[in-house]
Amino acid sequence: MPLILFAAPDLWPEYRDTLPAALAEAGLDTTLVTEADPAAVDYIVYAPASPLQDFTPYTRTKAVLNLWAGVERIVGNPTLTQPLTRMVDPGLTEGMVEWVTGHTLRHHLGMDRHIVNPGHVWDPTCPPLARERPVTILGMGALGSACADALRGLNFPVTGWSRTPKPGNLHGEDGLKQALSTAQILITLLPKTPETENLLNADRLALLPKGAVILNPGRGPLIDDDALLAALDAGHIGHATLDVFRVEPLPADHPFWSHPKVTVTPHIAADTRAITASRVIAENIRRGEAGEPFLHRVDRTRGY
Amino acid sequence: MPLILFAAPDLWPEYRDTLPAALAEAGLDTTLVTEADPAAVDYIVYAPASPLQDFTPYTRTKAVLNLWAGVERIVGNPTLTQPLTRMVDPGLTEGMVEWVTGHTLRHHLGMDRHIVNPGHVWDPTCPPLARERPVTILGMGALGSACADALRGLNFPVTGWSRTPKPGNLHGEDGLKQALSTAQILITLLPKTPETENLLNADRLALLPKGAVILNPGRGPLIDDDALLAALDAGHIGHATLDVFRVEPLPADHPFWSHPKVTVTPHIAADTRAITASRVIAENIRRGEAGEPFLHRVDRTRGY
Repeated sequence: MPLILFAAPDLWPEYRDTLPAALAEAGLDTTLVTEADPAAVDYIVYAPASPLQDFTPYTRTKAVLNLWAGVERIVGNPTLTQPLTRMVDPGLTEGMVEWVTGHTLRHHLGMDRHIVNPGHVWDPTCPPLARERPVTILGMGALGSACADALRGLNFPVTGWSRTPKPGNLHGEDGLKQALSTAQILITLLPKTPETENLLNADRLALLPKGAVILNPGRGPLIDDDALLAALDAGHIGHATLDVFRVEPLPADHPFWSHPKVTVTPHIAADTRAITASRVIAENIRRGEAGEPFLHRVDRTRGY
Repeated sequence: MPLILFAAPDLWPEYRDTLPAALAEAGLDTTLVTEADPAAVDYIVYAPASPLQDFTPYTRTKAVLNLWAGVERIVGNPTLTQPLTRMVDPGLTEGMVEWVTGHTLRHHLGMDRHIVNPGHVWDPTCPPLARERPVTILGMGALGSACADALRGLNFPVTGWSRTPKPGNLHGEDGLKQALSTAQILITLLPKTPETENLLNADRLALLPKGAVILNPGRGPLIDDDALLAALDAGHIGHATLDVFRVEPLPADHPFWSHPKVTVTPHIAADTRAITASRVIAENIRRGEAGEPFLHRVDRTRGY
């Protein structure tokens, strides 16, 4: 009977009922605990904020199953030699698609000037149709691809760029230049790796068309904050709607809070939902016990 | 060679080039004019604001082709005995789908509290998923159906209600009660007829769940303005985003302008686009010349 250590104390109340139910649903006879002798643990259910940072004593552990999509805070941990999986939660993907589609339409339709209209201006100028509004997505993994599908379903012409070559998408430095040059709305959904940090620096922001809008529901460090503020102040970037930040909660004195061309959303674009995430965890434990390959296993050489 | 009278002077600049191009594309050899001897006119391209209100002298005219989706300002004209068609412009439908989907997602995600956040509040409470947010559409014609498809594509459970029975939709007074009772977001896309005027009165607004949001991109008179304001003030209705009004532009002293729970958009949800609308007009003239039935012919008994 495999012993599962749930090593994310803050999240335990959400998973106390859903995870045993999902394990039973998967036909698994397991023991689920929040404290255990490390040498006896078969699987660790993990969140990066966990106090557990030294994996050395977990000699028997077959996998560390991350509850978050992002693994940047654990992937570089030198004590972690066990297979690591990241969360690809269908609920998380749906939430991300809703946030991205909603804020894309918000900027496309120019909603803000109606939501805040103290002068009661009646200007019946119509926006262009979505088919006339090119959107670029940087990062065409599970989340980026799902967002591209939803936006294409609404007629937006979507250009995808990914770090590794993927059919139908641009890649490489030349591909990035091309992807940025047409983006009236740019969505950043890359993982955080040493290569993607500050990917949107001053030079690359300058490649965007004047007035472009940036949506960042991916990772805070993808964008150079100071370069973004400068591009907003210069009028080159029209608006930035940011869900993720280098420090969260966003510090009270950060200029993003009061910048008129920045909207801060509090890391809500994609939340792992306990019910659907528990099923993913249970499926991976079932696979581990059956000797099948894990789903969503992190490639340490790529960092995600 | 059929003589076409373009009787919408305000719109002539938009159609001067696109309509002849569409007629040529449809293989039609026609004469297009903005003034003509009524007795010689084969087709009238029309907008309700046109100075032409007496159709009696147009004895030869085979059809009046309306450039707008709404026909309430012409359908009751007693001098109009010729077939009347309304505009079903693919561009107009796309624009409507974008406005409806965008404002549905805006309210679903609770965007306004991030767009206007003077206290810099960081509250990472996630909204529910779209699959947990029931939406009701009143009016399941071309526009309502297209909006339902788009919202269902984003996982919203959509209930449709129409005045005439349509497969898969509710209808009738009992159906309306049912449709309203579950609507966390209500979208009104009915045509304006004597039966739909003030359809959303105090009694029907009371059937909505507490906190429901209303989007009206249809026709202003569908809603009883005073009943809506009372329901907003009582806290029963959470918000109303309105694109259409009894008087447009919305008068400066109308309480909607300054009500904190009302968003006014200036009749931009659906605009007829000259390029796509010209093709619809040309196709109907081709049909008229070929003796085929007109597309989107108005049923005078229903009023649309």
